[in-house]
Amino acid sequence: MSVTLTDIEAAAARLAGQALETPLLRNPALDERLGLTVLFKAETLQRVGAFKFRGAYNRLVQLSPAERQAGVVAFSSGNHAQGVALAARLLDMPAVIVMPSDAPQVKVAATRGYGAEVRFYDRLTESREAIAAELAQARGAIIVPAFDDPHIIAGQGTAGLELAAQAAALGLSLDAVVVPVSGGGLAAGVATAVKARSPATAIWGVEPKGFDDTRQSLAAGARQVLKPQGRTLCDSLESPFPGEITFPILQAHMAGVAVVDDAEVARAVRCAALDLKLVVEPGGAAGLAALLAGKISLRPGAVVAVILSGGNIDPALLAQILAEPAAS
Amino acid sequence: MSVTLTDIEAAAARLAGQALETPLLRNPALDERLGLTVLFKAETLQRVGAFKFRGAYNRLVQLSPAERQAGVVAFSSGNHAQGVALAARLLDMPAVIVMPSDAPQVKVAATRGYGAEVRFYDRLTESREAIAAELAQARGAIIVPAFDDPHIIAGQGTAGLELAAQAAALGLSLDAVVVPVSGGGLAAGVATAVKARSPATAIWGVEPKGFDDTRQSLAAGARQVLKPQGRTLCDSLESPFPGEITFPILQAHMAGVAVVDDAEVARAVRCAALDLKLVVEPGGAAGLAALLAGKISLRPGAVVAVILSGGNIDPALLAQILAEPAAS
Repeated sequence: MSVTLTDIEAAAARLAGQALETPLLRNPALDERLGLTVLFKAETLQRVGAFKFRGAYNRLVQLSPAERQAGVVAFSSGNHAQGVALAARLLDMPAVIVMPSDAPQVKVAATRGYGAEVRFYDRLTESREAIAAELAQARGAIIVPAFDDPHIIAGQGTAGLELAAQAAALGLSLDAVVVPVSGGGLAAGVATAVKARSPATAIWGVEPKGFDDTRQSLAAGARQVLKPQGRTLCDSLESPFPGEITFPILQAHMAGVAVVDDAEVARAVRCAALDLKLVVEPGGAAGLAALLAGKISLRPGAVVAVILSGGNIDPALLAQILAEPAAS
Repeated sequence: MSVTLTDIEAAAARLAGQALETPLLRNPALDERLGLTVLFKAETLQRVGAFKFRGAYNRLVQLSPAERQAGVVAFSSGNHAQGVALAARLLDMPAVIVMPSDAPQVKVAATRGYGAEVRFYDRLTESREAIAAELAQARGAIIVPAFDDPHIIAGQGTAGLELAAQAAALGLSLDAVVVPVSGGGLAAGVATAVKARSPATAIWGVEPKGFDDTRQSLAAGARQVLKPQGRTLCDSLESPFPGEITFPILQAHMAGVAVVDDAEVARAVRCAALDLKLVVEPGGAAGLAALLAGKISLRPGAVVAVILSGGNIDPALLAQILAEPAAS
């Protein structure tokens, strides 16, 4: 059940002409401030505003004609929902997305905008897994997991493949890659691709405070399931456990996991907007947050790629972060 | 005194390794909404957050050793100031920037951050030209104009050269290029480069309401000087007349000039942030504003490149625009 470079290359071929090749951006002023060479992989500029389209499309395009007719079911409050909805529309198949009734209005609207049906559930009294399973059974539809699926992981890995090629085209050798971690689909895919191309590159994960299940699992040598005590600004990084498939890949490849708090994340969202001129959602800015907070071990002058994984931030939240006086 | 493709190519050679090659971005969802293929040239991602670095560096790098020692003087409330300040620092020469005392705080801070000295003046009672001339004479320094200089125009034109090459690499033939117009340095440079590469491409300028001096000058067949009655959200597009050098170039190449009002510009800044995930300042979003408002004549399905010329927006203003309910 693992994922290989060949799987990721095959995914890249399937995604050609569908996913965008997102740019690898430089910011010399920030480099100077940090004493590093930083390359930003702007998955915020991917279709649906996040890397999630890559994995969703790679999964859905491999369904059989009969499976396509029955369609797909997914549960997600955010970017995976939009990725599945758009991929389903492009492949002309029905999609139902199970979303919490308190999901941000912009994400619900975007998911519906891509043509998916939305089925709401009550976060406190209902099980989204049960609802999705029921819907899938009733329709003969396939459930598309958010991360624990080899095709999803291979799809997300194409971001790493691009990143490695783009860095090589600049003549730069990557000392480290920093990637936000929730269930680990992006991290596992990117780690597999980057390590295949450049074995000496250190892969760093970043998790939000209170949701550092991957850090704890790596330390324990086995998957840990957290009982979250609260929320995080990083709504896209709230998974309480790494996946069954993603975890062994992360174990094989990760140099470590940094943990960032809400203040550090807000500072990164602000820095992205004002210095990089990029709109990045809190979870998408976790890697930058770790870098700005000095939580990634790097030699001076190191070349480090940071994946800005998504840009679907609530406008009111971005306005609030921008209106606050600069913390730094 | 005109500017040729050869001048722009020479400027591109001087800028290699100094200016960034900014990406040409796609957004399929917006394309679908507009019924167009839109390519965004993101000069927001250029050094100093705007195209202005290109022209400033191309001018300053051609100064003699003696001229470099005396340094440069410029007057600008914004992006030209930052472009000159950074170019001067990279070339190790002193720079004084004459700025209005009500210039956006972020722009003042950034200009100082690049090591330039800032001399404030009162917009209502003092002449920035007189102050700059006095400073230049006292120091034996060179005044770097914001737009009416062939080296500045050639430098800005490198954005058009890149754009044309990037579109060609995508296999796309440009029906139109849309560019914000203030004094006309960017528009003249881009028009020269694009027309040389692709003569059939229509070049459209965009000006803010109340500052449509170029539109009026083109209509009259001679440079008109406006007496502005008020302000515009587009602080970077407030020039009341086209340049002596830029105007004949614009006359030779422009298909027309669209005029956008503050509400249309605010809508474009919001669309850039929420749909494109890019932070764009009002003047930088003028081209997108004209496109969204349907003010550029285009056949359905046309391929149009829009230059997002700068991203140095005051965070409080961006917060305010984001916090307003969507107009569309």
